[in-house]
Order: sequence, then C-alpha cells, then structure tokens
Amino acid sequence: MGEISQGQRPSWEVVAKEHAAEQLNNIPAAWRLPKDTLGWLSGVGTADEGRLIRLQAARQSGLLSDRELDITEKHTARDLLPKLAARQLTSVEVTVAFCKRAALAQQLVGTGSFISLCTSCLTEIFFDEAIERAKEADRYLEENGKVRGPLHGLPISMKDSFVVKGRHATVGYVEYLRQPLPEGESTLVKLLQDAGAILYCKTNVPQTMMTADSENNIFGRTLNPHNTQLNAGGSTGGEGALLAFRGSPLGVGTDIAGSIRIPAACCGIYGFKPTADRVPFGGQNACPFPRNRLPGIVPAAGPMANTLADLRLFMDVVVSEGRPWTYDGTTIDIPWRKLASPNPNNHKLVVGIAPEDEEFRLHPPVKRTIEDAARKLEAAGHTVVRLPTDPSRSIALGGRLAFAFYGLEGHPSNAEMEAEFGEPLVKSLAVGVHPFARNPPPLAPHWSEAKKVAEWHRLRGEYCDSWRRAWLEHRLDVVLAPGAISTAVPHDAFGVPVYTAAWNVTNYPACIIPYGSSSKALDPSPMKGHAAFDADYNPELQDDAPCAIQVITPTFKDEECLHAAFIIDEVLNGA
Amino acid sequence: MGEISQGQRPSWEVVAKEHAAEQLNNIPAAWRLPKDTLGWLSGVGTADEGRLIRLQAARQSGLLSDRELDITEKHTARDLLPKLAARQLTSVEVTVAFCKRAALAQQLVGTGSFISLCTSCLTEIFFDEAIERAKEADRYLEENGKVRGPLHGLPISMKDSFVVKGRHATVGYVEYLRQPLPEGESTLVKLLQDAGAILYCKTNVPQTMMTADSENNIFGRTLNPHNTQLNAGGSTGGEGALLAFRGSPLGVGTDIAGSIRIPAACCGIYGFKPTADRVPFGGQNACPFPRNRLPGIVPAAGPMANTLADLRLFMDVVVSEGRPWTYDGTTIDIPWRKLASPNPNNHKLVVGIAPEDEEFRLHPPVKRTIEDAARKLEAAGHTVVRLPTDPSRSIALGGRLAFAFYGLEGHPSNAEMEAEFGEPLVKSLAVGVHPFARNPPPLAPHWSEAKKVAEWHRLRGEYCDSWRRAWLEHRLDVVLAPGAISTAVPHDAFGVPVYTAAWNVTNYPACIIPYGSSSKALDPSPMKGHAAFDADYNPELQDDAPCAIQVITPTFKDEECLHAAFIIDEVLNGA
Repeated sequence: MGEISQGQRPSWEVVAKEHAAEQLNNIPAAWRLPKDTLGWLSGVGTADEGRLIRLQAARQSGLLSDRELDITEKHTARDLLPKLAARQLTSVEVTVAFCKRAALAQQLVGTGSFISLCTSCLTEIFFDEAIERAKEADRYLEENGKVRGPLHGLPISMKDSFVVKGRHATVGYVEYLRQPLPEGESTLVKLLQDAGAILYCKTNVPQTMMTADSENNIFGRTLNPHNTQLNAGGSTGGEGALLAFRGSPLGVGTDIAGSIRIPAACCGIYGFKPTADRVPFGGQNACPFPRNRLPGIVPAAGPMANTLADLRLFMDVVVSEGRPWTYDGTTIDIPWRKLASPNPNNHKLVVGIAPEDEEFRLHPPVKRTIEDAARKLEAAGHTVVRLPTDPSRSIALGGRLAFAFYGLEGHPSNAEMEAEFGEPLVKSLAVGVHPFARNPPPLAPHWSEAKKVAEWHRLRGEYCDSWRRAWLEHRLDVVLAPGAISTAVPHDAFGVPVYTAAWNVTNYPACIIPYGSSSKALDPSPMKGHAAFDADYNPELQDDAPCAIQVITPTFKDEECLHAAFIIDEVLNGA
Repeated sequence: MGEISQGQRPSWEVVAKEHAAEQLNNIPAAWRLPKDTLGWLSGVGTADEGRLIRLQAARQSGLLSDRELDITEKHTARDLLPKLAARQLTSVEVTVAFCKRAALAQQLVGTGSFISLCTSCLTEIFFDEAIERAKEADRYLEENGKVRGPLHGLPISMKDSFVVKGRHATVGYVEYLRQPLPEGESTLVKLLQDAGAILYCKTNVPQTMMTADSENNIFGRTLNPHNTQLNAGGSTGGEGALLAFRGSPLGVGTDIAGSIRIPAACCGIYGFKPTADRVPFGGQNACPFPRNRLPGIVPAAGPMANTLADLRLFMDVVVSEGRPWTYDGTTIDIPWRKLASPNPNNHKLVVGIAPEDEEFRLHPPVKRTIEDAARKLEAAGHTVVRLPTDPSRSIALGGRLAFAFYGLEGHPSNAEMEAEFGEPLVKSLAVGVHPFARNPPPLAPHWSEAKKVAEWHRLRGEYCDSWRRAWLEHRLDVVLAPGAISTAVPHDAFGVPVYTAAWNVTNYPACIIPYGSSSKALDPSPMKGHAAFDADYNPELQDDAPCAIQVITPTFKDEECLHAAFIIDEVLNGA
C-alpha cells in the first residue's frame, strides 16, 4: 500500500457506510420496500407497534406468494428435506422464499427511539449466488436422480463469524472490511455445503461478540421481531431474529457465554449449545480481544431453529454423516449416538430444578415459567427435584469463573479497545458489565499468568465436580434452569449472562426450549434490577416477550440432552 | 510439630532408609530368599547373568507351586476371570500366586555394577491386606452365588502415583513419607475395587516421573528382568518389569510423554495409552514440579498387560461397565464402542509407516522390526503406505512441542530442584535431556506466559492438523511407528522420548505391541548416538532385548486402535 495510500486511508465511518450501502444493494430491487410501507407493516403508530410477528408482517407485505408463505411458515427444515428430495419442492423456490422473507426481516423498522433503524438481522447477503446454487442442486437431482447430501437444497443461515468464500466475515469490526475478501472458508461451512445446504446470508452480531445486544458500527443493531423495543440477544442475535421471523429454516450460532442460547430465549426459538468440539468450529473470524486464545472455556458451534427436530437433524447430519473430523481436526470424531425414540410414554425423567441464585434474582415471568414447567412435568409423571442452594455450584460462581476466564489477561479498558479497534465502542460494550461487582474475582490480580491459568482450571474442576455430585446424589437425567434472569429486555440492558455462562464453564450441553411468554396480567409487579447491571422488569414493556427454559446434561451427553428436551417439549408445548 | 521437632527432623536418608526396611518387612518372611539363592537365581557369574526371564528364575526358585506357576504363567487376566467366577480358582490362591511372584521379582538381584541392587519393581507392598480382601471375595461369591463385579477377585498392580487408602503414594519423593498416610484414594482405585479387583502392590517410578529410568531415593532403581543391565523404562517402569516377570496379571500406568509405552516396549509387554480422560485419572500424587498444572498435554491412565485381550478387558470394564464419570468428573462419559470382532479375515487395514526422523535415527534392531512388520503386514494383504517425511508433522517437531509444554514455566535448574526436593537428584534426572539441543524451542523465552500458552496451543493445533491431513490423504486406518529410537538401553542413557511424546501432543491413542527382539547376529554393527543425549546401540549388551511397534489412531479412536492392534498382533505374533 505504501505511505501515500496510508495517508488517504478512509475513515471507519466511510468504510462502514459504503459497506452498508452495498449490503442494501444485495437485496434485489423488487424486494426492497418503500419506507412508508415498512412503517405500516411494522405497525408504527398502532398499539402493536414493532410487534412484527404478532402483526404478521410477512403475510401483510404481499412480498411472498401463498406458496412462499406456506414454505416459510408451515415447514420445518425436516419437513422441507424429504419434499426437496422427492422434487415436490424445488430448491430454487424454497431458497427464493427464504431470501424474500429474510430481506423483509432485514428491512422492517423499529419503534420508539429505534424507529429510524431497520431490524438488521443480516450482515452479508448473497441471495443471487444462493439461487444459482439452488438451480444447480435442482439440476443435479434431476440429472442424477439422487440428492447431493442429507441437506440437499436446504437454505441455511449462519452467524457472521463463519467465513464463506468471497464474502466478508467482519464480525462487525470495520477494520476487517479493509482486508481482502476471504479465499478460504470455515470448516463447518464446507461441511454444510458438501451436505447440500444452500447458504444465502449471514447474520448480525455485537461488536466483539461479547455482549447480548447485537449491535456494531457496520450493520447497526438487531431488533427483536417480537417487539422491536427489546433486544434480540447476542451474540448470535441476528440469527435469533431471522429465525423467529421465519426468514430461515435452520441457523448456526456459536456460544462461549450464551451466544446461542440468549438470542434463542429472547426471540422465542430453540437453540442448542452442544459439548464443545462436537461441531466443527475452525476457521471463523473473531475480534482482536482477547489477544491470546488461552485454553479453558471452549466455544461451541450449534444449531438454532423453530423446532427441536431441526436441532437434532443438524446434530445428526453434522456429527454422524458429516464426519466432522475430516473437515476440522479440533472436532471430536465420535458419531452421534442414536438413543431410543423420545417417546414420553416410554421414559420418565428425573429433572433437577436449579435453584434461583441469590445474587441473580429472576424476573417474575421467568420465575413463573420455571415453576410452571416443573409443575407440568410433575403432573406428567416425571420426578422433579428442587435442588438445594449450594455455594460450590451456584450459578453466580459459574458466572464469576466464566468472566475470570474471559478476562484472564486482564480486561482491556474502553480506551484501549477503541484504540485497537479504530472505531467507537457500541453502548452495550462501553457500559461494560462487571461480574465482580458483588464478589471478588476468583483469581488474585497479582498472580503470574501461569498461576492464573492453572488455578482457573483447578477451580473449574471443583465447580464441575460439585455439579457432578448433584447429578449422582439426585440421580438426575437433566437440570432445568432459566436461560437468563429475564426475557428480552430494552436494548443495552441485558446484564451479566450467568445462567448461560455457567454451563460454558462446565462444558455441559444446554438446550433452550421456548415456553410461554411474559404477561403483564400474570406478572403485574415491576421489579428493580437486584444490583448494578441487572435488568429491570417492566411488565408493560416486556409484555408478551417469549419465555424459555434451559435443559442441561453433563458433558458429552448431547444425545441425552436433546432426547430429554423432546420429552419436556412434548409436556410443555405439546410438540 | 513446633520448633523442637523441626530441629529433630530426620534427614531424607534416614526417612528413606526406614521406609525401605519397612517395605522389605511387608514381604512375608517365608517368601524372602537368602542373598546367595537370589544371586544364583539371577545367574550371577553365568553367561545369562541378569537375564531373569530366560533363566526362568520364578520356576527355579521353588517358591511357587506348580499350580501357582500355572496361574501366573499360563493365564491371562481374561483367562482368570471366568475361572474365578466359576470357582475353579479362588481369589486367595490367585492373589497368593501373584504376591509370591511379585515378591520374587522385587528381590532378584542385578548384575555388573548393579549387582548389589534388587530388581526393585515394587514400592508399597500390601500382600496381607490383599489376601484378606481375596478371602472376602471368595466368601462373597460362595454366599451370594455371584461375583462382586467384572474384575471379581483379580489381583491388579498399579503405578505408585495412584493413591490407595492407608498406603503411601510417594512417587519416590522422600518428603511425602513425612506426611500422614492418605485417607482418600484415586478415582480409578475406587472404580477398580468396586469392580472387584484386589490391589496388592504398587510399582516403582523415577524421581519426578519425568525420566525413562525408574529410579528414586526411596525404592532404588527398577532393573529390566530381561536383562538387569538394561533399563526397564519409565515412568511406569516398575509395572513394566513386574508384568514382564508375570508378577501381575494386569497393571495400570500413566503416560504424558510415553510413561506407559516406554516401559512396555523396554520390557516386552503390551501397553495402551488411551485418549486422555477416557480412564479416570483424578486423585493421583505428583511431585512439586511443574508448579502450575497448565492445560495442554493431558496425561492418560491406561492398562499394561501380557496380552492385547487384557488391555481391552481393562478398557471395556473401566470405560463401559465402570461408568467412570460417576467416579471422576474429568472423565468423558461415553461408553466404549463395541466394534465388529477383530477377525483379520474380515478386515484389511491401511497402515501408514511413520518415516524415520532425520533428527532421531533408529537403532538397527528398531529399524529392522518396523520394516519386518511392514513386510509381514503387506504379505498378509494389508495396504502399507510409507509416509513421506514432512517437517510439519515430524516426530522431532512433536517432541519439541512436548518438551516446550513440559517446560512452559521454564525448566528448573538441578539446584532449584534439589532445594525444592530436599534430596539429591537421581542420575537420569541430573544429566537432563535437552530436547532443544538441535533445534530452538518453538516458544520464544521472552514471550509472556499467556502468549506462550496460547501459542503452544496454536502450534499443537497445526501439528495435529498436519497429521489429520496425512490420515485423510492416505486413507489410513492406523499409523505404525517405533516406540523409541532404541530398545531398552543401559541405565540412565535413554535419551529424549520423541517417538512416544509426539502422540501425547496429538492426544492420539497408541498401543505398544512387543514384536521380536534385538539380535547381535542380525544387527551386528554398533551405532553411536546420533547426537548428544541419544542412546548408543551396543549389539552385545542389547542382544535379545525386546523389540516393539507402536500402533496409533486419531483422538477418540481408542476402539479402532485396539481393534487394529489385534489384527496386527495376529499377523506379527500369531496371537
């Protein structure tokens, strides 16, 4: 580049703006709606303003044909695949349907102070290429009389951190836009494409991917389609919003503190964080902090979808048929174990209910949801064990261990981060969350780095062992816990995600099942956040926000986790 | 204790000497043989001096009855179990037989400059307690008509690092003798006892467990029963010597650089290092270095035996029936996968032969053994691929990565170690081995500890990935490699164990199969060690030392590793 072009280096604002304009251009003109139509579809000025799902914005838009509405609303991924294979549906029509719906999800506008924003669930948009690939898939099937793989012709959306050849993977970091387009791809991208999947877009994330508000300086902020005044969660927030709007039949996220589960819970969809290294993780992009990738909590890639069956479809295809180790050496090469059919009549569970943490009090609708789930499970003949409070396995301790790991090298100051990024911090990052506000960190700041790392691993071992003893003592099949203290909350207010991060510390598989919703009628009393950085409960604002439960099993019992989730889902949602 | 007793603190020599005397007293007087008998049994002054196995010292001793000789020599663990269950053999007679033989193995004397030493394969001896437990087992079976568990009544020996309630676990570290006797036990000890096993002795290790010469200041030096002038390997050297002498039907070792495989190869027995965390490892003792237990290479516990079937018996019982996670939270809770019967007629392997490393030249008998194995496998219809040399996956690089990990916090000087231990270093530790004598370490000394740890993990990932590509490119089932550049060598001369440590870096399961032996007739030319710290080849001295091959599979393919080992063993040894 040399000194001259360095001198002419455009500012981050210019680079970001150019890319945002290009992004909009990647939506075909015919699918771009005028501002006032978008406002009308988003219910601006009505009582349901910003409640895009309740408003049936997709149906009202007229953008999708009845057949496209049927494809996107009435079909799960598992429904689509046999129809694609039997040529009852073409990959092109399925892909176009989801592209259209994704385009709409992207454009719909916010409310209140976010009224000028679009929902912004997408980052890179490559509908054209996807439709070309879908054509090839259809042609292949026609010519060969067989599918290309177990995901033949199915559109799949992925978190922006996944690298697709020829597409940016900025993770919202402007600096990455200055780099050449990737020539390689993430290992999971290759696996899914080899299995026949059609990638058509990537989805939005927070700056650094370490907050629960999916906002950054390139793609803006993802709004929750259930209520655009609420956050969509993060870091896989764009995916959560897109799936909730049924702009994707199957999505992929990653999770090191809750980044699959928080958006799943906020957006009312299903999300599964498997044991680390069961799904290929390699070849993703990340931001420059932390500087060193220390061993400890290993992030996991996993599926997000509108049904449990689709989560299991993904795991089965990726882990068994995908032979993931042949794509990614960090993946553990053991096939997905087939368990007996998850028929609730065949199997009664022992379900441990994680106690509410004294330091992290649950919002009323969250508390009600867990209690209601426990009651229903008991009524269905399952054994429910209300686990006693035990400081050696508290959710708060799990959270402290998690944040001690994320900050093993010390937490960079906002000024350091801004200097490194060359762009301002988004608000949810700038306000920071201080997990040690209530209790000191478990690692003494004056220890050597080696001692901190070693001691963290020792403490993690003790924490896991305490949970193991709970499992044995109560003969548990699963633990049931909330996914967070709250449902989706107003933007930039989510707080410390201890109810998810604790299970990253233990590396336990965890599945979010949507169940019920917040209700100003049932939970009329507001609640002030228990401490700094805790979200408040506002019955009016959060009314009808999705609620969820989290189903947890020990490490490598991924199969048992989903199996139990099916049984529980059947009881709670009559799935 | 107070200041007065501190002042009276006995020296390390006194403490060690007292314990050694107590150890001898734990062998019943009737089983203690006079010095001249031991000298005669060890062939002192004859051409076969110190070749205890060739001399049939156990048979000549008259200590064991014919039935006891039959039990110890003609039965594998897998043969004994059904006979114990069917009460064709009592646990007491089996236990007594192995106690006697272990007592003899322990007492037999060395040759040359080691003539004053006993073979010293044992550390803690608790025959009395074992025989009591065997009586209980027999009574239980008689009264209940069923066995206590899948290892009912079977004597099992274990490396000294495993903690047995009420018995020291000094790992040869005198300081630990000053501590109270353990009240707890290692997780694997509990599992094996619950499965019905009878523990009767523990076995010798090197000071710090980081050399291949099992010598320390309490229990002395383990000699190789094939030839007492040669080392037994380490760090599970006592186990290797004991099993080779058939003083145990089944032993347990641990391996972070080759500590199961080196003694197995040196002593001519079978040894299996599984993927880490498949066998419970928790609750063992270790020496004070390194100060911090950093994550990286995870040591593995695994079986050592006289047949492959016994290795698999151990894995099957511990991993499947033992439900190891219920004992040890660090264990991965996936059952042992049953593969199709390892019938060589049903399955042809693709076997990659690891190339000889240019930096670590093989001794002639080792080279001949690998070439001979490759030829025989080819002749039996298996596909043999001679893997090309590739610096990105060289054994030497694996060794450098391994030693970079062991020294992540810097290698303590001899003076530091002596100061810490409060006792002198044994010779094999004092001479040190300098794995970076030929090539610089992969981590720059001036890096921060966090950067070193992170960078080590990144480099390890690259190394694993290069091996993965070899596996895919050549469609390999297994890799065949030597277990070391040499067979057993004269004491304190073993050098850097790169051919084993490389597979600790990759965390690949690896199985030692004994095959043939060194031969002054076939390999008549001596060879000087290629570089400092490499062992010399001395055809005369090493004549008839056991040779071995190593069978390797990718991480978590433990089942495939043993499966292939069966097929290969059948071809090579007609097992």
